[in-house]
Amino acid sequence: MPQLRLLSVIIFKKQTILKRIILIILVGIFTQHSISQTKLSEKLNLIPWPKEIKKATDNFILNSDFTIQINQKDAKKVVNAATKFLRRASNRTGVFLKNGFPSTTNKNASLRINFKQVSHPKLGIDESYTLEVKRDHIKLNATTDIGAIRGIETLLQLLKTDHNSSYFSGVIISDAPRFQWRGLMIDVARHFQPVAVLKRNLDAMAAVKMNVFHWHLTDDQGFRVESKVYPRLQEFASDGLYYTQNQIKDVVNYASRLGIRVVPEFDVPGHASAILTAYPELGSKEGYQYSIETNAGVFDPTLDPTNNKTYDFLKNLFTEIAPLFPDEYFHIGGDENEGKHWDQNKKISAFKKKHNLKNNHDLQTYFNIKLEKILLKLNKKLMGWDEIMTPTMPTTAVIHSWRGKNEGLKESTLIEAAKKGYQSVLSNGYYIDRMLSVKHHYSVDPIGDAKLTNKERAMILGGEATIWSELVTPLTIDSRIWPRTAAIAERYWSKKTVTDFDNMYKRLQVVSFQLEELGITHIRNKNVILRNLTQNQHVSSLTTLSAISEPLKIYSRNAGGTEYQMYSPFTLFADACNVDAEDAIYFNKIVATHIANPTPKTKKKIVYYFHKWSKGFVQFNKLKSNTKLEKLRPLYSSLNTVSNLFINAIKGNSKLLKTEITAAIKELKLPVEDVEIVIITSLEKLNNFL
Amino acid sequence: MPQLRLLSVIIFKKQTILKRIILIILVGIFTQHSISQTKLSEKLNLIPWPKEIKKATDNFILNSDFTIQINQKDAKKVVNAATKFLRRASNRTGVFLKNGFPSTTNKNASLRINFKQVSHPKLGIDESYTLEVKRDHIKLNATTDIGAIRGIETLLQLLKTDHNSSYFSGVIISDAPRFQWRGLMIDVARHFQPVAVLKRNLDAMAAVKMNVFHWHLTDDQGFRVESKVYPRLQEFASDGLYYTQNQIKDVVNYASRLGIRVVPEFDVPGHASAILTAYPELGSKEGYQYSIETNAGVFDPTLDPTNNKTYDFLKNLFTEIAPLFPDEYFHIGGDENEGKHWDQNKKISAFKKKHNLKNNHDLQTYFNIKLEKILLKLNKKLMGWDEIMTPTMPTTAVIHSWRGKNEGLKESTLIEAAKKGYQSVLSNGYYIDRMLSVKHHYSVDPIGDAKLTNKERAMILGGEATIWSELVTPLTIDSRIWPRTAAIAERYWSKKTVTDFDNMYKRLQVVSFQLEELGITHIRNKNVILRNLTQNQHVSSLTTLSAISEPLKIYSRNAGGTEYQMYSPFTLFADACNVDAEDAIYFNKIVATHIANPTPKTKKKIVYYFHKWSKGFVQFNKLKSNTKLEKLRPLYSSLNTVSNLFINAIKGNSKLLKTEITAAIKELKLPVEDVEIVIITSLEKLNNFL
Repeated sequence: MPQLRLLSVIIFKKQTILKRIILIILVGIFTQHSISQTKLSEKLNLIPWPKEIKKATDNFILNSDFTIQINQKDAKKVVNAATKFLRRASNRTGVFLKNGFPSTTNKNASLRINFKQVSHPKLGIDESYTLEVKRDHIKLNATTDIGAIRGIETLLQLLKTDHNSSYFSGVIISDAPRFQWRGLMIDVARHFQPVAVLKRNLDAMAAVKMNVFHWHLTDDQGFRVESKVYPRLQEFASDGLYYTQNQIKDVVNYASRLGIRVVPEFDVPGHASAILTAYPELGSKEGYQYSIETNAGVFDPTLDPTNNKTYDFLKNLFTEIAPLFPDEYFHIGGDENEGKHWDQNKKISAFKKKHNLKNNHDLQTYFNIKLEKILLKLNKKLMGWDEIMTPTMPTTAVIHSWRGKNEGLKESTLIEAAKKGYQSVLSNGYYIDRMLSVKHHYSVDPIGDAKLTNKERAMILGGEATIWSELVTPLTIDSRIWPRTAAIAERYWSKKTVTDFDNMYKRLQVVSFQLEELGITHIRNKNVILRNLTQNQHVSSLTTLSAISEPLKIYSRNAGGTEYQMYSPFTLFADACNVDAEDAIYFNKIVATHIANPTPKTKKKIVYYFHKWSKGFVQFNKLKSNTKLEKLRPLYSSLNTVSNLFINAIKGNSKLLKTEITAAIKELKLPVEDVEIVIITSLEKLNNFL
Repeated sequence: MPQLRLLSVIIFKKQTILKRIILIILVGIFTQHSISQTKLSEKLNLIPWPKEIKKATDNFILNSDFTIQINQKDAKKVVNAATKFLRRASNRTGVFLKNGFPSTTNKNASLRINFKQVSHPKLGIDESYTLEVKRDHIKLNATTDIGAIRGIETLLQLLKTDHNSSYFSGVIISDAPRFQWRGLMIDVARHFQPVAVLKRNLDAMAAVKMNVFHWHLTDDQGFRVESKVYPRLQEFASDGLYYTQNQIKDVVNYASRLGIRVVPEFDVPGHASAILTAYPELGSKEGYQYSIETNAGVFDPTLDPTNNKTYDFLKNLFTEIAPLFPDEYFHIGGDENEGKHWDQNKKISAFKKKHNLKNNHDLQTYFNIKLEKILLKLNKKLMGWDEIMTPTMPTTAVIHSWRGKNEGLKESTLIEAAKKGYQSVLSNGYYIDRMLSVKHHYSVDPIGDAKLTNKERAMILGGEATIWSELVTPLTIDSRIWPRTAAIAERYWSKKTVTDFDNMYKRLQVVSFQLEELGITHIRNKNVILRNLTQNQHVSSLTTLSAISEPLKIYSRNAGGTEYQMYSPFTLFADACNVDAEDAIYFNKIVATHIANPTPKTKKKIVYYFHKWSKGFVQFNKLKSNTKLEKLRPLYSSLNTVSNLFINAIKGNSKLLKTEITAAIKELKLPVEDVEIVIITSLEKLNNFL
């Protein structure tokens, strides 16, 4: 809110009693404004929350006469978004529209979209828009077509259906993003993700105003791009699943139409098992038998940075591939190279000495600088994971910060990068494959409390949620990305002060449901897995169990990286479960409330859940069993025991049962089928409380 | 069973008492064989049912050591299918496999696949295979790689999981198709279907051994192919949704790898509104304002067959497009041209006189013959809907029979075509968009009782299920195709004598569920629509209602073609409902059983349903209402009334309530939201019976 800041500057400069009064009045207005905003966010389910929003008096009723006008003829992105808008609005509300397409001439249209410039997705593009929903018209204004399509998504989130009608809530919005880089990285190397998966996720990204799709295309487990220059890559450097160049163009076009940049990543010199399987002569260890990796982990195969052939290869490959990606940023990975194979090669050691490279960091920087020159000729800016930030690395590189406190650092490398003069993007704290709660990710601010100059602050471009795919297949990927990424998208777009978790969580429930409109499968595919577990019998008993079960977190599901291989089954109970397990959230809340202030109502609610779990086990026992269900039996049985004990304890036998309950809870903690029951703490507290 | 036919010929030629005895013995063997087959089909859920199948003594247990060997290195189709086989088997059973990929060298592999020739999908290709599942090995032999992948699908249908293990049922199978043309036509003109929809349906087709994807690419509502020669087609002849040539290649490659031919259809000279919107100069009516059609129906815009420019256009277009489709058949539509615009054009009338063309049929034949010459130069055989079968049409054309008794003919045009010497394919009886029961479609045999010579019989290539997409979107298309098309696939593949509906229906339930493995959304998307109706509240009350509701049939949902336009909402209650409504099938069966032989058990089951519906209405009333739910209220309310009356009547007040029930049933018959309650007849019978 720049106006207010300006006012306070004036006030503090010439402070007198009169002006103090003015200040008080202004603070009053501000506070009132703040309060009304909070109220608005209780009513409207917008994510990300807009920069400025006011309630307008009346809503706009959607009926069959609804029309759209776009002020320009050359408006492919807006026509695309507006046409889809009509389908989505009609499908959501059931209203039959007479006009299924936007027009350029109808000046009395219900929704009038005005923008000034056709643009291409590019870092720093103007994405701002204003939106006015009044009783008799809707106006959407923007500088660029991309701003216009951001506004269209906001408008769709304002569309509700009640008993009498469908309507857009009356508002006046002036919106613009806080950060210009709001990304989602998808790893398609560990598990290949077909074009359809990417497209539907691009749709969802656009729905929450994200603008960078970081495409992690290569890793030890697969090189996923067709190369005509190096055809052995698609023949030998994957399990046969890769994108043709035409498919890549298709995805990039699709993203571009949604105002989303595509930043490709070719991870070098480490994470290179797949490349070296096809071209072993580029490897650092002579005579090593390279093969596609099928486990998870950090592996040794590394390109040889002392071999000119390596640079010929990368130059030719990037020259072939770079034109597929119009964006000016090009990610070269550069992470997790421990240099073991370098140390085991005498020639490389000799090379280091000769070139005065003191350690492997220096050698990698030598490599990175050569890469940067190759990319510069292709008009690309080099971006890499934070390991590339060595003392000799030029500040022209963009640093992608993935390490922070979890990795033993004081703070994320993002701040260090900004202070050293690098542009930087944050992913530390946004690793959604770690299966942590939405609350956790929502609480991470890219800048936080770091003391930075304005110049340093400007170096921080934004952030990226990252979904690494060791344990993620096309069947489950949507449920691992959504809805949490919508909360992260709000963190990147909305003001730093928008931090009320409970309020966001309420809005998230609605937006999560609306993602189904775009084909996101995070809700629907749960039952697909449960049906597979029961072999097409009723799934309700498993639904009950999964509503308090979460997959093991922070990679403990696949400790060591060898329990699961890339072709292991990912149709297990853990794959049907998700973080932020629904019943657990409610149960934990009720238990906390009950302990703070026990009432018959809270008691009744608690007992309701114990009965639900105990009944669930009865249903479970009625299923025709199979080997997969049998593996779940110990877990469900323990839950049943705990539940029945608590039902008895709450009836009045609490003292006598305390020890028995403690023992039963201990059983319930035992790891079964890679999930954890996330009500344990509440159960323990409740047992102590009774 | 050719051997048996041979034997009976011998027997009937030289019949003596001794031989009569032999006959009796043989009949005995045959009957026994028949019975054991029937028993096997009770146990094994194969669709289509194989030509010859015997039970082997032991099953093959699937464990983590499972491996596959393929006898040839050049075996892309088989490697693809075998790799997917491993994923599907692992995902279905939860067994972690140590070897995730097939090998060419491992001669002791669990599954050994041998084939002789790499082939390309082509009419008449050898698709036979033999499969032997024994205790310690599985052998799959085939002449071609396509035969091998057909066998892999059979093997997957033999894989079950029980209490102790996962196993392939022991069998000895020798299989081959009855018809060589087993197709599914998808209309992508009325509603565009993205590549992902096509690919998942191709996977499903392969799973039930279908081998022709007929791609209806153009119609009044859209021309869906990119043309570089005629770019106005993609600019003006659709709503912006079309396939790029690269996407077409991608789909054709994908199909080819599954052993599926792709036959494109470019519908001319009628159904041409879209083409003429882009190129009005090719139209038959001067000065006519052509525009993309958004309604359903038969429309007048037609190419001018007397204009040389028309042939230049088609020649250039087909020359550009034909190479995208390697199959030798090319479908030119040719249906439903009523010639109205021809009659309204004096030049066309003059042309007819000059060339001695007596009527519009003759004129269309003139057009078709010119087209056939164009296609011949492109090495394509012309195929068209049965209207092209005029007296002067050469028998080199392939006739696609869509008309029959429903269209006022004595029999389907298929038989007529075969008798006249045309090769022919049947779709009459397989119009799955008419929303008729699976029982209906399963009962249609392409040849039936028609008396044909062997030569005539050989002209009948097979059949095609057709999904016209006026009321079908990507969200619902799978549920409109599957599972019914699996039953049709059996009709095309299995012997004519495989007609036991109840047995097929039992097998279909399992195969339908397995289609989820391939990404088919027919089950999961139902709840997506129901959640949209409730706006993310519980859907169980709507599930209950939808289990006895079916969408209106035989195009009565969109009588006149104008209630729904191409951009109307298809997220309504009718879209969540499907034919063969599950509860209705069971309820109707129980009522019939009860009327034939009333027992306390049948009575109890009947009452169970009335309570279910009555409780459903209670739940429905608890939902926060919206305009879409309100539209369903009258229907649910009537169902509730009927249910409560029956509950009372069955308690003993039947006589008194008969009239009231009759009135309530009448209410329940009233059309609401384009569905019909398909238990009405049973309710009426029950009311009379009580």
